[in-house]
Amino acid sequence: MTFAPANQEFVERFGDQLPPDRFSRADARFLIEQRGLATGQPDSLVARPRSTAEVALIVRQANAANVAVIPYGGGTGLVGGQIRSAGPPSLILSCERMKKISKIKPETRVVTTQSGVVLSDLHAALGQQDMIFPLSLGAQGECQIGGNLATNAGGAQVLKYGNMRDLCLGIEAVLPTGEVFNGLSELRKDNTGYDLRHLLIGAEGTLGIITAATLRIFPKPVQQCTAILNIRDLGDALSILEQARIKLDDRVTAFELINLTGVDLVGKHLPDVRIPIAEKSEWMVLIEVVSLIEGDLDSAFNAFVEAEIESGRITNGTVAQSAKQRDEIWTFRETIPLGNRREGAIASHDISVPLDVVASFIESTSRHFHRQYDVRINCFGHVGDGNLHYNIFPGAGRVASDYRNVKAHISDYVYKAVLDTGGSISAEHGIGRFKKAQLAATADPTKLGVMAAVKKALDPNGIMNPGALIDVPS
Amino acid sequence: MTFAPANQEFVERFGDQLPPDRFSRADARFLIEQRGLATGQPDSLVARPRSTAEVALIVRQANAANVAVIPYGGGTGLVGGQIRSAGPPSLILSCERMKKISKIKPETRVVTTQSGVVLSDLHAALGQQDMIFPLSLGAQGECQIGGNLATNAGGAQVLKYGNMRDLCLGIEAVLPTGEVFNGLSELRKDNTGYDLRHLLIGAEGTLGIITAATLRIFPKPVQQCTAILNIRDLGDALSILEQARIKLDDRVTAFELINLTGVDLVGKHLPDVRIPIAEKSEWMVLIEVVSLIEGDLDSAFNAFVEAEIESGRITNGTVAQSAKQRDEIWTFRETIPLGNRREGAIASHDISVPLDVVASFIESTSRHFHRQYDVRINCFGHVGDGNLHYNIFPGAGRVASDYRNVKAHISDYVYKAVLDTGGSISAEHGIGRFKKAQLAATADPTKLGVMAAVKKALDPNGIMNPGALIDVPS
Repeated sequence: MTFAPANQEFVERFGDQLPPDRFSRADARFLIEQRGLATGQPDSLVARPRSTAEVALIVRQANAANVAVIPYGGGTGLVGGQIRSAGPPSLILSCERMKKISKIKPETRVVTTQSGVVLSDLHAALGQQDMIFPLSLGAQGECQIGGNLATNAGGAQVLKYGNMRDLCLGIEAVLPTGEVFNGLSELRKDNTGYDLRHLLIGAEGTLGIITAATLRIFPKPVQQCTAILNIRDLGDALSILEQARIKLDDRVTAFELINLTGVDLVGKHLPDVRIPIAEKSEWMVLIEVVSLIEGDLDSAFNAFVEAEIESGRITNGTVAQSAKQRDEIWTFRETIPLGNRREGAIASHDISVPLDVVASFIESTSRHFHRQYDVRINCFGHVGDGNLHYNIFPGAGRVASDYRNVKAHISDYVYKAVLDTGGSISAEHGIGRFKKAQLAATADPTKLGVMAAVKKALDPNGIMNPGALIDVPS
Repeated sequence: MTFAPANQEFVERFGDQLPPDRFSRADARFLIEQRGLATGQPDSLVARPRSTAEVALIVRQANAANVAVIPYGGGTGLVGGQIRSAGPPSLILSCERMKKISKIKPETRVVTTQSGVVLSDLHAALGQQDMIFPLSLGAQGECQIGGNLATNAGGAQVLKYGNMRDLCLGIEAVLPTGEVFNGLSELRKDNTGYDLRHLLIGAEGTLGIITAATLRIFPKPVQQCTAILNIRDLGDALSILEQARIKLDDRVTAFELINLTGVDLVGKHLPDVRIPIAEKSEWMVLIEVVSLIEGDLDSAFNAFVEAEIESGRITNGTVAQSAKQRDEIWTFRETIPLGNRREGAIASHDISVPLDVVASFIESTSRHFHRQYDVRINCFGHVGDGNLHYNIFPGAGRVASDYRNVKAHISDYVYKAVLDTGGSISAEHGIGRFKKAQLAATADPTKLGVMAAVKKALDPNGIMNPGALIDVPS
């Protein structure tokens, strides 16, 4: 597909329909992938509309002029979905000026927000009313609600609250033709035809631009227990989780796996970060439990921990005794990815596997890699929902580039092993441009066919985020 | 669109690829809507395949021969989605022979089941392992998992567990072309392209036939508190709910609205059903709270009730003191629709409105109807999620047919009032054939356009449940 450039001629199409400040030349912040893994077309244009009507106008003209539109949120995506390097200069469309939180309704547990709102700003606005939006990510100070929806963001609280898809009641979006889908519903039940909300969520901007959303919010917990527990055997993690869920009456919000390698990399690269672990072990879990009422959550939690220690499945642990200690635990946890990045991985993988094979998957793949290569492995993540970040590092004294010949073999092996378990090659980061080839090679062929048919039906000119997720022949 | 008849010639296309017992002439059970509101084409053929491969074979041939396929579950749908009266004899496709529950995994909270399994059979199989599948409906002894998914069934436990869509992790389906979508995932997180599961769920069989699913299951509660509480003022219902959710630590599973008219109709038409209400009042709520652990749920629940009585918002109530009394409460609740049916409504409406306008919606529409017509109103339902069943009956001494000239006006008024609040004209029953005109007249035009485009893309010959949900020009 050949696109027209997003140049001055394109801007002139709008005449006096749009103030001139809506367009500008793209600067580095829109063009450079945060890890330097991709660079956008240097002459790209950025559009920063102020309303849904302006988004619709811009997209309608782009569709008419055959200009490629690249939706851009906070730029924190990890799969290159927001960066197009190929083709003529693109139109990068940012909703960063659309950051109004129009309605907070604590009594019905709904917030209505524009898509350019930064996630942590939404947290702050809700906090003033003692409410929470439970999506929580390392990137929350930069990522935007629109990008969270487009990528169906996950994070650490999915176990109790679900992912972005589950937290969304309705959306408003501009489709590739410039038509506006008015689906900003506050309803819990609405069976009136195909669910376009779920079609657009997770479509990574290839079917339209989400301009606003209604989201589920929750009362702020009154009690929280947070701990890092050393587990004797990785194979016990699932039953420890299930014990916690039952004994603590389904109030577990997070259950994160931590590996010793991840701890050591934080210590090495981020010496200022306090490591809230009494005694290191090969495997640890971070667990958090909440309650909406005053009461004895602490003693129930301590009883659970003591029973697990008595059973021998937990050998040691650090239970937060204050809000400060709780924050230290989460800061440490959210710093693990940065420690990994500073070390420099040979290959990283955001995967999920069925819960009952998490341990055997990690053990068998690790055995394979240690036998074949001189590597270190840090496998960590949201084990409560089967989501693992499986990162592979050079052996001591080596660097990632020493492995350039085997890097593809390593990833292929991970993905094949994942698929053999019925797992996913992208649990929460999405496909973007970096994983497109893997998706095409491994997904159910019927699914790929339907995706292509739907893409063509909604975006006949293929202008919306071309090159991301799926290539559709014209 | 003109279809070929599903006749002997069609059966002969299969040669020896299928045993002859797979096809039979449709009998009354497949042709007559349970309330007699529609009748299928009398010469229709029923296909009852035994496997997904057989479903695929049959659909592929139907697509090639241009035969209309009508997916049929338990036949309990309330909007005519399972009955096609028009056109030549159709091929009714029933998965009733595909009723294997292949995998129950309590430790990871997943069940894998074929779509022909009856909902109450799934409940029974899980009960043997102390697990529950929380979808609960009046029709659960007949409805099938495939139909529950195709219509995104709701019911009384949506408040805590969500509707069928939320309870489904993965599906397998045969698309209108006969291709099989293999999406039988057990994963909680999987961001690999468009979510076809959510596209097919709620599509009412117009995009394919769901043949199997992986569903979320939950441990059976150890404690339950169930009560019917008399409320002084309908306007207090929402704050009573929110108090219950907070004070009982988000363990409320059901919050149902009951109106005096509904109670009286059960008393009149079903005298054998015990009415577990101490003292009737205009408005009552049924509330249920559960816990996974032994403990003091009863005393927390009683404290909540007493505080509400003290505040004056609750005037009286019946708290179940035994499992038998709990069953009586639910039996009574589930009998309300039958009492309504026996009385004979002028018009019935399955609607939802935003939670904060439930009371004002009911009050203003009731005022209008009582002023305009001699009618009685029974408005009841799953008020915790905004879903109301709004049924209008003849005044004393009159019959429904006396109102034939105003029936359409009444429904139009309800739907217009619903839409004015941002509500839905079909909360949980779907659109089917009976509400198709209302959907076409009232839905967001962009949504209707996308639905038509998606339908055409996936079902180019329009063979899959034609006439339901949406008409697509060929």
